[in-house]
Amino acid sequence: MRILGIDPGLGTTGYGVIDDKSFRIIEAGVINTKSNTPIQARISKIFNEISGIIDEHKPAVLVLEKIYSHYKHPTTAILMGHARAMACLVCGKYNIKLINYPSTKIKKTITGNGHASKKQVQRMVQNLLKLKDPPEPVDVSDALAMAISYCYLENGQGLRAGGQG
Amino acid sequence: MRILGIDPGLGTTGYGVIDDKSFRIIEAGVINTKSNTPIQARISKIFNEISGIIDEHKPAVLVLEKIYSHYKHPTTAILMGHARAMACLVCGKYNIKLINYPSTKIKKTITGNGHASKKQVQRMVQNLLKLKDPPEPVDVSDALAMAISYCYLENGQGLRAGGQG
Repeated sequence: MRILGIDPGLGTTGYGVIDDKSFRIIEAGVINTKSNTPIQARISKIFNEISGIIDEHKPAVLVLEKIYSHYKHPTTAILMGHARAMACLVCGKYNIKLINYPSTKIKKTITGNGHASKKQVQRMVQNLLKLKDPPEPVDVSDALAMAISYCYLENGQGLRAGGQG
Repeated sequence: MRILGIDPGLGTTGYGVIDDKSFRIIEAGVINTKSNTPIQARISKIFNEISGIIDEHKPAVLVLEKIYSHYKHPTTAILMGHARAMACLVCGKYNIKLINYPSTKIKKTITGNGHASKKQVQRMVQNLLKLKDPPEPVDVSDALAMAISYCYLENGQGLRAGGQG
């Protein structure tokens, strides 16, 4: 089964598809949009690219971070909401199971500390998926952390043991 | 030419289509979603209903309020962003011109006061469109105010004179 984690942002949306049996990355990357591009074109791009990832890899589950309220700037929060909505809409379109975890739950699952830094999450994602290099940028490692958390929390898989190999 | 104004909200999205020649409402109403419905179904409903309005009435322009930053709760702002993104995405899908006005500009155009109450906007929308009753709820009058503002600001039409009839 394939799990897709998405870390949405209007400028940069990170994504990662993993296989829950092999704990290997199937595909991971970012969807970038430019701030001087009209908003309708930016969010259409995000919608189309997420749709393309789903068409290609057919994940059974899409994992997002739960909406939280520690944004300093409401405008940033609204724009993130625009990008996040594309992931939700795609779940509706393809009838994919949508899972939300609080950020602290993901961090705790991956690192043991609910307030771990993004760098620490990145290193653990590298360990758990047995990658030569840490996934870059952090939007990608955060997205992969969401997908890994699903395997660990819902399937009860022993990721930590696997990560030590 | 037809102008579609949208006042997006995850729970209630108001909309109004007007004809810029006759200054008559073509259609106006709300799209409601329930808070106990999964988010992907809620935003799919908003997306599908806005698409349906456009299929039926073929507006040339869609008017939204500019993103502003006076939300008290970031969570509310993010959820509004989810609904607003559906209007933007529809503009991309149908290649409709998307216009954003600051809330204060719309209020000033409609009432002469950039800080007018929603009730005052509602009464002026009733006057300008020669309606027997004020448009209800305020999500609808706000959406109509956006569409009217476009006619007034971009077409230079003498709405105020028309509204006194």
